[in-house]
Amino acid sequence: MTKWVYRFGGDKSEGNSGMRNLLGGKGANLAEMASLGLPVPPGFTITTEVCTAFYDNNRQYPEGLKDQVAQAMAWLEEMNNKSFGDEANPLLVSIRSGARASMPGMMDTVLNLGLNDSTVEGLAKKTGDERFAYDSYRRFIQMYSNVVLGVEHYHFEDVLEAAKAKRGAKLDTELTAQDLKDLVLKYKDVVKNAIDGPFPEDPEEQLWGGIGAVFGSWMNQRAATYRKLHDIPASWGTAVNVQSMVFGNLGNDCATGVAFTRNPSTGENAFYGEYLVNAQGEDVVAGIRTPQPISLAAKAAQETDLPAMEEVMPKLYDQLCEMRTRLETHYKEMQDLEFTIEKDTLYLLQTRNGKRTTPAALRIAVEMCEEGMIDEREAVSRIPPASLDQLLHPTLDPTAKRDLFGRGLPASPGACSGTIVFSADDAESKAQLGETVILVREETSPEDIHGMHAAAGILTTRGGMTSHAAVVARGMGRPCVCGAGELHVNYKTKTVTTKDKTLKEGDVITLDGATGEVMIGSVPTIQPELSGDFAKLMTWADKIRRMKVRTNAETKADCETARKFGAEGIGLCRTEHMFFEADRITAVRRMIVAETEADRRKALDEIQPMQKQDFKDIFTVMRGLPVTIRLLDPPLHEFLPKTDADMEEVARVAGTDVLHVSQRSAQLHEANPMLGHRGCRLGVTYPEISEMQARAIFEAAVEIANETGEPVIPEVMIPLAFSKKEIDLIKDVIDRTAHEVQAATGKKFEYLVGTMIELPRAALMAGEIAQSAQFFSFGTNDLTQTTFGISRDDAAHFLPDYERVGIFEHDPFVTLDQEGVGQLVKLACERGKATRPDIKLGICGEHGGDPASVIFCNSVGLDYVSCSPYRVPIARLAAAQAAISSERRDSTA
Amino acid sequence: MTKWVYRFGGDKSEGNSGMRNLLGGKGANLAEMASLGLPVPPGFTITTEVCTAFYDNNRQYPEGLKDQVAQAMAWLEEMNNKSFGDEANPLLVSIRSGARASMPGMMDTVLNLGLNDSTVEGLAKKTGDERFAYDSYRRFIQMYSNVVLGVEHYHFEDVLEAAKAKRGAKLDTELTAQDLKDLVLKYKDVVKNAIDGPFPEDPEEQLWGGIGAVFGSWMNQRAATYRKLHDIPASWGTAVNVQSMVFGNLGNDCATGVAFTRNPSTGENAFYGEYLVNAQGEDVVAGIRTPQPISLAAKAAQETDLPAMEEVMPKLYDQLCEMRTRLETHYKEMQDLEFTIEKDTLYLLQTRNGKRTTPAALRIAVEMCEEGMIDEREAVSRIPPASLDQLLHPTLDPTAKRDLFGRGLPASPGACSGTIVFSADDAESKAQLGETVILVREETSPEDIHGMHAAAGILTTRGGMTSHAAVVARGMGRPCVCGAGELHVNYKTKTVTTKDKTLKEGDVITLDGATGEVMIGSVPTIQPELSGDFAKLMTWADKIRRMKVRTNAETKADCETARKFGAEGIGLCRTEHMFFEADRITAVRRMIVAETEADRRKALDEIQPMQKQDFKDIFTVMRGLPVTIRLLDPPLHEFLPKTDADMEEVARVAGTDVLHVSQRSAQLHEANPMLGHRGCRLGVTYPEISEMQARAIFEAAVEIANETGEPVIPEVMIPLAFSKKEIDLIKDVIDRTAHEVQAATGKKFEYLVGTMIELPRAALMAGEIAQSAQFFSFGTNDLTQTTFGISRDDAAHFLPDYERVGIFEHDPFVTLDQEGVGQLVKLACERGKATRPDIKLGICGEHGGDPASVIFCNSVGLDYVSCSPYRVPIARLAAAQAAISSERRDSTA
Repeated sequence: MTKWVYRFGGDKSEGNSGMRNLLGGKGANLAEMASLGLPVPPGFTITTEVCTAFYDNNRQYPEGLKDQVAQAMAWLEEMNNKSFGDEANPLLVSIRSGARASMPGMMDTVLNLGLNDSTVEGLAKKTGDERFAYDSYRRFIQMYSNVVLGVEHYHFEDVLEAAKAKRGAKLDTELTAQDLKDLVLKYKDVVKNAIDGPFPEDPEEQLWGGIGAVFGSWMNQRAATYRKLHDIPASWGTAVNVQSMVFGNLGNDCATGVAFTRNPSTGENAFYGEYLVNAQGEDVVAGIRTPQPISLAAKAAQETDLPAMEEVMPKLYDQLCEMRTRLETHYKEMQDLEFTIEKDTLYLLQTRNGKRTTPAALRIAVEMCEEGMIDEREAVSRIPPASLDQLLHPTLDPTAKRDLFGRGLPASPGACSGTIVFSADDAESKAQLGETVILVREETSPEDIHGMHAAAGILTTRGGMTSHAAVVARGMGRPCVCGAGELHVNYKTKTVTTKDKTLKEGDVITLDGATGEVMIGSVPTIQPELSGDFAKLMTWADKIRRMKVRTNAETKADCETARKFGAEGIGLCRTEHMFFEADRITAVRRMIVAETEADRRKALDEIQPMQKQDFKDIFTVMRGLPVTIRLLDPPLHEFLPKTDADMEEVARVAGTDVLHVSQRSAQLHEANPMLGHRGCRLGVTYPEISEMQARAIFEAAVEIANETGEPVIPEVMIPLAFSKKEIDLIKDVIDRTAHEVQAATGKKFEYLVGTMIELPRAALMAGEIAQSAQFFSFGTNDLTQTTFGISRDDAAHFLPDYERVGIFEHDPFVTLDQEGVGQLVKLACERGKATRPDIKLGICGEHGGDPASVIFCNSVGLDYVSCSPYRVPIARLAAAQAAISSERRDSTA
Repeated sequence: MTKWVYRFGGDKSEGNSGMRNLLGGKGANLAEMASLGLPVPPGFTITTEVCTAFYDNNRQYPEGLKDQVAQAMAWLEEMNNKSFGDEANPLLVSIRSGARASMPGMMDTVLNLGLNDSTVEGLAKKTGDERFAYDSYRRFIQMYSNVVLGVEHYHFEDVLEAAKAKRGAKLDTELTAQDLKDLVLKYKDVVKNAIDGPFPEDPEEQLWGGIGAVFGSWMNQRAATYRKLHDIPASWGTAVNVQSMVFGNLGNDCATGVAFTRNPSTGENAFYGEYLVNAQGEDVVAGIRTPQPISLAAKAAQETDLPAMEEVMPKLYDQLCEMRTRLETHYKEMQDLEFTIEKDTLYLLQTRNGKRTTPAALRIAVEMCEEGMIDEREAVSRIPPASLDQLLHPTLDPTAKRDLFGRGLPASPGACSGTIVFSADDAESKAQLGETVILVREETSPEDIHGMHAAAGILTTRGGMTSHAAVVARGMGRPCVCGAGELHVNYKTKTVTTKDKTLKEGDVITLDGATGEVMIGSVPTIQPELSGDFAKLMTWADKIRRMKVRTNAETKADCETARKFGAEGIGLCRTEHMFFEADRITAVRRMIVAETEADRRKALDEIQPMQKQDFKDIFTVMRGLPVTIRLLDPPLHEFLPKTDADMEEVARVAGTDVLHVSQRSAQLHEANPMLGHRGCRLGVTYPEISEMQARAIFEAAVEIANETGEPVIPEVMIPLAFSKKEIDLIKDVIDRTAHEVQAATGKKFEYLVGTMIELPRAALMAGEIAQSAQFFSFGTNDLTQTTFGISRDDAAHFLPDYERVGIFEHDPFVTLDQEGVGQLVKLACERGKATRPDIKLGICGEHGGDPASVIFCNSVGLDYVSCSPYRVPIARLAAAQAAISSERRDSTA
């Protein structure tokens, strides 16, 4: 005979936490607690197999079930020394559903089952509290009628309101025992009218009604939809839990409370909780009475006069403390537990891993490790990497009032307030006068860099998570909200408007870069502090991880930040940002409008010493570490003069006329610059640009090695290639230049030449490309753009709809699309390694700082990830977790 | 002993045409002709293995070679009844190189080898022509000294010029025997000075010098570079051919000529050729004397008085005719042959497949098939599909004078002249007045369609082979030159300029769409005529091919053209072109600026009847055939009003204000429209657009089926999808609409719903996508753009450089990149078929009309290719050739 029923509590616990599939989550957990000898009110679980059999067999229960339930009920009566339906000493039970995972739409709970017109009297006598008994009864009728018989709540609410009105009462608690007795009669009338029959008085009928309702709810519409959305097969079924009732509201020897085994706000290893004497569980959370602290220490800390459980019920408090220890020892995790005391007896109703703040999570993990409860790997696994963000950036005071103006994408974390400016130049000039400004633009371009530096935060109305504004802001650690499409910027009137509100230049706004919210006025912020726990945990993470973590940085300040956060090199140093500096943009423009190699070389000769100084600054900070430098990448027309004054200046220094400059500008215009004349295509058409950059890199490397004695290893990266031939052409120029610099300086140095893999064809041809490239760095921003055919700058037009209808679960520019783009990354890794087994593999797209993507990078065998400075700690932790989960997979494989 | 030497001619022919690897191309071919009994001057071939052995063995000849050459020379003396180095009756030979494939950089030819101060006298006596003998001698010294001894030509030219000046002669022929004798002495001095030693008089030394020079040239720089570029391994080696000399210039019983076995211009089955009495081969082509016809028929046809060979040398002419038959019977191809007559003896010096015009190629293939010489498959294989282009379009008279103005890409074939206009509106208005105009633009957009229709040809200064102008022009069959980057258009002054020339509106230019040339003034054209041979060959091709051929068309006229050219359905009907018609663009714009679904539906209700009429027109022409209709694809902002007048009109009909329209326009602007809010993304955000289009399609299908009794099968195509979910969302709308139309009309109809595969992710996810898509159509234009990350509109900035340095062998927008893009196509086919074995696979990118790409499409198992109407015959032929070559591969596999 199949075993359909598993008991828990008392002298028997037939299940354990490993039997989740058979007993559901709740049933398995109750059995586990009971096995630990914890005082769980006894009960039993009807297995998920019954549910399956029920539906397989035309909604008939399987053979033997009735008998097994009857036996379990008899055992329950014995345990409780009460009888189900007994007029003098009735056993009451709760019925709850319990699938493998908690599931909205399922029947939840029926309490106090077993009450009827006779047993309610027994309960009244036995407890000596008639009001309690009838209040329990009327609540049972409502709950049962609603979830089992399908009678809508509002019928009962109407009757209740009428009773209160008649009595002139505001609260339910003001109703007397007699009022409640009357209410029971009226409730029964409601049921009679609604279901055309009497409320079931027979406890046995009640019991099977409740069990049937749980199984029935497994197939209701809401549950079915939920399962479909979450790929849960209907064949899993749900279990049913029947448990004896205990009451915390039967007098002053009763109580109820919740507790955390450690402080969930700070992580301190101190018992933390609240309780109420003579109360039901819901009273603690409902806020009608003020909950009291459980410990004297907490009482002192909270400076309250309310008596602590430790002084009121010292013995029970000791028991609870012992349970606290037992639970933590068993679960090796901070627990959130619920307890009830009925007539001086302590019962545990639930335990689960407790929610906590990020600082608490860090402290708990570190201390549990130091206490020997868990090892370093486990401690490292416990912290969600993304949660570190709030430790690294200021955040808005959660208690402060917010006047929402609009909403965009949470593009770069941190919070800040400042006055609105609409141009980079205004940002700079006002910031120089000491004003804190927020730069508000439709979108930003490389020309705005100085203004973004000057601003405390950036707000744009266009562009996605990897738009120019977002990428640069993250790199600088500036809070940024992007693509706030409902805002309209008018540069002429210097206003930003929504449908009903207008703000102008000089008005104060606040950005929350973690949520994407834009507030009117100033909202106070909280400054972050990095704790010793953080440092310890990161040290452990560093021991565990296989992948290196580098940073994407190109200014001295960014490099310093990144080293402080533990970066082990630069994975992406973009050289184009350097081209926009005010003192060199004219030379750059002169180079672009040049039509002969000789003219271009003249302009490049002016730029070269400045580029070299940039690299020297970076190499000084990064000395001893590898630095990957990407050759000039963006379409040339981004650098073009736009205003008449710019054109005149360029014409003057280039010795040509304005007409020629404007014609050349028009000629360089591109319909789709993302797919245009950029990346290594510039180096193929103008090899002298690559040559100038290579010379600046190598000369800087030699000089800094001489100065510091710690050589950097420059890794010269060729962007946007799709073929081996492009690499060969540019690598020839780089190698030739390296030889020239070595000959001229008499100094040998190491360097690598590699490429970005950022086009689908590059991934497909990786085997061939690896013949020439010594490393690959996956440029997953562009690879995502081209694989999906989505411009990240324009995606805001439809991305929200794509997320709404479920085409995207995550923004693919934030979390790597493993299904599609990931195929190309994997393939390129495999083909690259097949050709060149020691090829160095990394990622420098924005995904390098996204934890889920870091795990993927680990799984395909990348050697390093690279991300913006402020995400380096996140990547270090994610890389460690990736290593741990990959070991686990290996050891179970 | 290894056989190093193979003889040919006379009584012995040890090789044949199958021994190309051992004997080289020339040697194998000479042996083959000799085997056929054709009168080839006897000689022998030193094998390629000698070359390999020579280099493997430190430039030493292998053992036995000297003996075998000596024996072969003895045999040659016997055959010719002359002796090598004999003072009275000298044997002279030529030495030529001969690798498997002809290869620039190799030593070519030394003639008259064996002459020295003694043998020249023997030759003079024997031929009775002292002048001939010394002219041959001085030529030999120059040739030998140059190619074997490395003495530069100009030394000899200087001496020759001095001799002519002294004599007061203009031509070499004016020099006397004595002059030439003197020249020989001076030539020898030149050699002595240059090589610091005497010219070798010993014929044996000359022979080995010549052989050594051929082998030595195999490893010279130019040959090595050529091999590297063409992946020819150095180990192949070259052969050396030593052949007895014959002379056509020893008197009036001598002659030399070239002939084609059929007429290479018309293909007529008539012997065709030219000859000269008492002349050397080079005299026929040098143009100093006028060559004479070989046949009387040709003499009559050419209306010349020059005597034909048929009358001058009737017996030799009969011999030549017999050889003509023998050669065609043997090679089963039209031959181009060279002959020499020495003292009434006819020698054949070379035969090879003759070059011919496309009409001739067609006629020859068809007639040879009808003569039973070749079968239909072979006839079909003989015609290069791309060559059909010149049959379908007017071409420039090749004899006319051309005044070149500029050059661009040959974007759409055909030639035309007309007056310049700079706007679509001007094109239309002038064309209505009867003027033939050429539309000259920087680039075209969908708004210019009416002007492109009105123009005879289109010239743009930007954009590549698949730019808007190119694609539309090919579809319309209009000649088009694109991306002529050196031209500068100024719309204000209505001029188009190069560095040194300016043309203005109203000036006449001529476009050659087949070469990309732009000429000033009018150049006469030749109109095409489709012959019966063409029709026959296409019928044979249709019997052979497996793949269907459809067309990309969206106007009634294009559909009619395509059906006439044999299209078997429409593979791509773009619906957006219909949206630009003057009578509906305002409604379309109103739809775009709408901000609510209700407003959008109002505008769509206006458009729907017009769309339906479009489809009815198309379905009427295409009745009985499948028609694939692509839902709206381009970014909405392409339709936006641009002028103030447009804005006002849209604001008026939409009942809103101009400010709102201009703001909405700004909002819809995209940085990279190619990767923007377009394709199925429009259908996801605005399902009502897909619904309107589906309704128009299905209602039109029902009505035309009722009218004609021949139902079309609409195939509704969803563009730019990258996931199954997008297809599902839009397919739901289409299916629901189909059911509604079926219910409303009471008429069932068949239809398919499928998708374009035009993004890398779509190819990667093809297995999943095929669960929902009933067909795939490869949009290889966009797939090429995204796989390479190249915008076809902008590629002109660097594509020429990419072709110059060899990164691209072919423009990937013209010929499918099989290495990269092809991987994705192949993978998508495999995954699609694995999911849905009967999935319909086609291609509708521009590559569908490119022969090399068509062969690829056949190899990956596509069911059809689709191309612009004028390329349909090309695709039919290419598909047949693909089927043939795939069968051949299968049968040899």
